[in-house]
Amino acid sequence: MRVERLEQLVAEAQLDLLLVGDLVRPGDSGPDAIANIRWLTGFTGTSGLAIVGSGRREFLTDFRYTERAAAEVADEFEKITVEGRLLPELAKRLSGRVGFDDAATSVQSLTKLQDALGADGAELVPAGGRVERLRRSKDEGEVAAIAEAARLADEVFEWTAERGLAGRSEREVALAAEARMRELGAEPSFRAIVASGPNGALPHAEPSAREIAAGELVVIDMGAKLDGYCSDGTRTFASGEIGDEERAVYELVQAAQAAALEAVRAGVAAAEADAVSRRPIEAAGHGDHYGHGLGHGLGLEVHEAPRLGKTSEDELAAGDVVTVEPGVYVPGRFGVRIEDLVVVGDDGIRNLSGTSKELRVIG
Amino acid sequence: MRVERLEQLVAEAQLDLLLVGDLVRPGDSGPDAIANIRWLTGFTGTSGLAIVGSGRREFLTDFRYTERAAAEVADEFEKITVEGRLLPELAKRLSGRVGFDDAATSVQSLTKLQDALGADGAELVPAGGRVERLRRSKDEGEVAAIAEAARLADEVFEWTAERGLAGRSEREVALAAEARMRELGAEPSFRAIVASGPNGALPHAEPSAREIAAGELVVIDMGAKLDGYCSDGTRTFASGEIGDEERAVYELVQAAQAAALEAVRAGVAAAEADAVSRRPIEAAGHGDHYGHGLGHGLGLEVHEAPRLGKTSEDELAAGDVVTVEPGVYVPGRFGVRIEDLVVVGDDGIRNLSGTSKELRVIG
Repeated sequence: MRVERLEQLVAEAQLDLLLVGDLVRPGDSGPDAIANIRWLTGFTGTSGLAIVGSGRREFLTDFRYTERAAAEVADEFEKITVEGRLLPELAKRLSGRVGFDDAATSVQSLTKLQDALGADGAELVPAGGRVERLRRSKDEGEVAAIAEAARLADEVFEWTAERGLAGRSEREVALAAEARMRELGAEPSFRAIVASGPNGALPHAEPSAREIAAGELVVIDMGAKLDGYCSDGTRTFASGEIGDEERAVYELVQAAQAAALEAVRAGVAAAEADAVSRRPIEAAGHGDHYGHGLGHGLGLEVHEAPRLGKTSEDELAAGDVVTVEPGVYVPGRFGVRIEDLVVVGDDGIRNLSGTSKELRVIG
Repeated sequence: MRVERLEQLVAEAQLDLLLVGDLVRPGDSGPDAIANIRWLTGFTGTSGLAIVGSGRREFLTDFRYTERAAAEVADEFEKITVEGRLLPELAKRLSGRVGFDDAATSVQSLTKLQDALGADGAELVPAGGRVERLRRSKDEGEVAAIAEAARLADEVFEWTAERGLAGRSEREVALAAEARMRELGAEPSFRAIVASGPNGALPHAEPSAREIAAGELVVIDMGAKLDGYCSDGTRTFASGEIGDEERAVYELVQAAQAAALEAVRAGVAAAEADAVSRRPIEAAGHGDHYGHGLGHGLGLEVHEAPRLGKTSEDELAAGDVVTVEPGVYVPGRFGVRIEDLVVVGDDGIRNLSGTSKELRVIG
């Protein structure tokens, strides 16, 4: 049971209680805190806090969500609807050493909570990141949910390619892909990126009004969110026949990505997997044109632990679900990125991305 | 100039500098902090901080946004691309008494910033809410942007009504309305609410799979976001002929809303405008069925100052843009809410909502 694993971390940190949830905009949680509450309790609304430890398993929400909490929150939690102002009501329930999520608590909310506790009340201790640590390793149900989101995104890649690229604007292609995801019952897990020609070389380009010309490379990076779980994937298509240099860079990134996929398995340092992807690119003289890390974990959020990059201290572990996405960006000219989503296992990976990585020339 | 008005508040608070922007997820701002930065500087990205005071007007972003900052940020700001980690780089630029947005700074970020400043560094002082105070009063350009968003939402109300309600699910109607907004070039300013029959009586119902029957009241609450500015409006339609009690409650809410619109003008206490809307509803014995405030300000965010409700201490002022949205919710049976968006002036209001409020019976 998830709450039992969290209780163990609470005890190890010598805390009496751990407060899980968002105290930045209480009652209107940000995405990271929503993910923690959802993972721990099953609740999908924006107003939820959990108190765990010392034999207590409590879920707090407000009147808007009483019925949803009854339907969604796991049986092991006592469900409480807070009447009145949240922070004073919360304070009444706290005693001893209480850990709170310092990354998801504003300075203002901490001050208000401390005022409500008074001088003799509970001691508040920064204790963020614990639920995130547990969320890193995905169970079977989570992998299935991510796989289904990835499958749906594959469908949208195919649908996008079939509609053609040249003559359409980047924005048009991106909005159509997002709309198609919604028609299929998902939400975009982030705003789709469609970056053509020289725009492909810009980091984090937003889809522009630029009309895609024939014979360009077009980077398309998108993901679906289904039942709370995200996918993330990138393909670079050609909008007609491209030049030799573009093709060579495409094949270089393809090779680097294949090498990285071979390297990813449990027990490997994330920095080493990153290095494997970087070697062929550096050897080809494009080292300076690969300005980001190899990938990142993903789940209820698009970016979760572990981080795959030069300075990462993470070690890959079975149950990690990560992206593998090297790229080469030639300033002012074009970019190529190829990104798969994979489950890390002891003997290698299970690849959740089904769209072909052979260069696809779209007429 | 907006920055000059902010500098005055900085001086009044005896601060040397004010830090504007989000330090919850630095580089990936939440909506409130984005709105502050956008209002002050014009920047529309998610990674932006401003330093104002003591003759300094600096805008900080990261490499992803250098070009966008050059294009968007107002001339009076020096534009700086931060290389390396944000908080240590930020610390180097701070000295004296420095106000920060305590509502948009996490405890973790404050600790990191204080560590980077060291014991002899700047003194950090909680100073949130100042930009929000200035944002409350809308200038002509802002009113025009909100009016255009409201006009677009009116178009979607009409489009929705023409497609019919009975026989469609709430979710289908809501998703179609959101998709139509996107086709028209806007984004939904929040997830559309479509609540039919008994669901109309639930506070903040999310659109469900429930199929709308003939002869029900259907509450539709939606808004558009265009050029950063939001609209918000509600109409309650009938999906075929309704009973006498439903019609009586509709007319009651219609009368209460009309009375409130008459009461709204500069100089009136927000609590008094709320009370005006409440009197006819209480007189009809539905006082307990109107469980929320009359309305709220709106602009770059859907919820801004002032707040129109029983316990509000705000006084309405010329330049406020507020919703006027009384409702009656009969538990287990049906709900009615009618919401307009208005600009407050010295002699009354300018109503930005164009959709008719006569009961519309949709076949």
